[in-house]
Amino acid sequence: MSVTAAAGFTAAGVTSGLKSAGRDLALVVNVGPLRHAAAVFTSNRVAAAPVLWSRQAISDGRADAVVLNSGGANACTGPEGFADTHHTAERVAEALDLSAQDVLVCSTGLIGERLDMGALLPGVDAAVAVLADDDDAASSAADAIRTTDSVSKTAQAAGAGFVVGGMAKGAGMLAPGMATMLSVITTDAVISQQDLDSALREAVRVSFDRADSDGCMSTNDTVIAMASGAHPQAHESGVDLHEFQAALTEVCRDLAAQLIADAEGAAHEIAITTVNAASEEDAETAGRSVARSNLFKTAIFGQDPNWGRILSAVGTTDVAFDPATIDVAVNGVWICRGGGIGEDRAGVDLTGRTVQVTIDLKSGDSEATILTNDLTHDYVHENSAYST
Amino acid sequence: MSVTAAAGFTAAGVTSGLKSAGRDLALVVNVGPLRHAAAVFTSNRVAAAPVLWSRQAISDGRADAVVLNSGGANACTGPEGFADTHHTAERVAEALDLSAQDVLVCSTGLIGERLDMGALLPGVDAAVAVLADDDDAASSAADAIRTTDSVSKTAQAAGAGFVVGGMAKGAGMLAPGMATMLSVITTDAVISQQDLDSALREAVRVSFDRADSDGCMSTNDTVIAMASGAHPQAHESGVDLHEFQAALTEVCRDLAAQLIADAEGAAHEIAITTVNAASEEDAETAGRSVARSNLFKTAIFGQDPNWGRILSAVGTTDVAFDPATIDVAVNGVWICRGGGIGEDRAGVDLTGRTVQVTIDLKSGDSEATILTNDLTHDYVHENSAYST
Repeated sequence: MSVTAAAGFTAAGVTSGLKSAGRDLALVVNVGPLRHAAAVFTSNRVAAAPVLWSRQAISDGRADAVVLNSGGANACTGPEGFADTHHTAERVAEALDLSAQDVLVCSTGLIGERLDMGALLPGVDAAVAVLADDDDAASSAADAIRTTDSVSKTAQAAGAGFVVGGMAKGAGMLAPGMATMLSVITTDAVISQQDLDSALREAVRVSFDRADSDGCMSTNDTVIAMASGAHPQAHESGVDLHEFQAALTEVCRDLAAQLIADAEGAAHEIAITTVNAASEEDAETAGRSVARSNLFKTAIFGQDPNWGRILSAVGTTDVAFDPATIDVAVNGVWICRGGGIGEDRAGVDLTGRTVQVTIDLKSGDSEATILTNDLTHDYVHENSAYST
Repeated sequence: MSVTAAAGFTAAGVTSGLKSAGRDLALVVNVGPLRHAAAVFTSNRVAAAPVLWSRQAISDGRADAVVLNSGGANACTGPEGFADTHHTAERVAEALDLSAQDVLVCSTGLIGERLDMGALLPGVDAAVAVLADDDDAASSAADAIRTTDSVSKTAQAAGAGFVVGGMAKGAGMLAPGMATMLSVITTDAVISQQDLDSALREAVRVSFDRADSDGCMSTNDTVIAMASGAHPQAHESGVDLHEFQAALTEVCRDLAAQLIADAEGAAHEIAITTVNAASEEDAETAGRSVARSNLFKTAIFGQDPNWGRILSAVGTTDVAFDPATIDVAVNGVWICRGGGIGEDRAGVDLTGRTVQVTIDLKSGDSEATILTNDLTHDYVHENSAYST
């Protein structure tokens, strides 16, 4: 169900011709009664035209529709690229009788190429014509935002008086401050814009922000949440915020895990959990440093529990730890004890697809988990041939 | 000639059995009359035993000998590993009638394994027995410090009243704050310890510190400079410091370039020159960010002049630049102009081994060059199978 699981939303996914084959244009519309929205964008200073547009469009906390295209990132395309995004929003607004300022735009694909507006604009009309609130519509939308994603990603959760559903795309350039990813999350909760905004930021902080496939931050990352307030059992006083936060975080974590599970060329999904850190930030920093070590990532690809590369990566950070007391486990075997040789590394089984690395900093009681991938021949292959 | 090019030094390289085959133990001795020394070490907090030892041994500015081994990094080996380093220094001191506190130790190889002292200590005696000041001795020493280096690296330069010679090893884990590397540089200059120290730090800052093959910082990086004052035409008043700095920097740059040219699995050597930066630090930061982008590195391997990935990497930094005015050239073709599409990318020839990327930030008049490599199938292969 994803983006149509919550009441008050319609969606569509169509083929406009931006890609060589398949669906490439998605539309998600909030039919209300509430039109609250929040979004988190890439912190990359080279931000794509749709990010520049959507940032200002959502500044009033309202969004009525989101139009998303694969087949081109519309990044590094100058004023002309920004005009393309503007025209896209205007076409959606015209067709749905909205203000263009309430239409958000997301794009994904190659950087540095103009979009084929001759394909995209008729695609908007085609999407509007098939908007629906059913499963098929949501599935088509999730399919249309895929680039090198091998499968579409959707998730949902529910609580008293609300449903939360979402879709996402990822696959490459998955990094900090979110993966290279687009995600639209809808809810029929009755919730204020301010509460929606803070709930989204907290959910993204502990989910997408901790999915770091290859350390490369995209120009287009966007996560949008929209609330319709249309749940049949909605209370006017609004949802329980604690319950809503839990559900939204669950959906974001589920989607983030799906992104890492389908990352370009990966042979392993790796969860790096840092425990007993002095702060949650320290735990995140230590895990991210390991996640970005190409030597660690290639070792996991080679099914080699090379804990020296883990320690070496943690040692480049400023987190609180003592090199003489740190412990490291890989898939449950504590192969590094007290900064030195621990249990027999031959006991570590890395033949499976999922890997759990646990780093015990012995400096406090905070923890965090970073999700990442190994570095493989397929990653090199896919990314060395992507634009040619 | 390398470490014996300057008068006042002897060297040796022998086979002790630490590696499965070939020379693995090197010794460089300063026979004076001066015994001034300076060193720069890894900033990794997980520092190997020989780094911990040498840091304190050189704190008085004096070193009479350096003993180096390949076949084991002696990192993450605890108090026992430190004792091994201490015994190594003592064995050198005994054999040469020195103080162990004046013997520096360097190790390189796998992390997390004890050294075979039963092989290493007799190796020290064997090295002492063949110490000589000729070419062969210097070549043997440079050969003995290789790990996965396919060739040994040496360089030299000279000025009025001095010669500077050096050797280095690198090959993998080449990163910030020096590559994973060991280097010993000798000079017969008459120079104070303070001047030698500041000259070495300046030379390393603009050479080894800007060689960043794979972003991974080693536990063992060490660059040592020793001055004997033994040059036949040495003036008591000392060398011209400006001329000495230039020669020392030239030797360090030469060695750093050799490391990048022989990096594990690389198919391209890439020089990233950032020009018109607000500061030298900004230029270095921008270049290093690009050097660490796996997407950029795989694109170069694929001979794909993907300038979007260059902009995307610069956009993650805080350096002064305007995304709407930045220009980027690859091998002389300005394929990105004003943050957008520039000259035809089809004009970029990436079939050769050397690649020149130029980033024009248009924010000042500083510049810096970072040396790096592409990310290849061979890198993945070599590093996924290294310890197993």
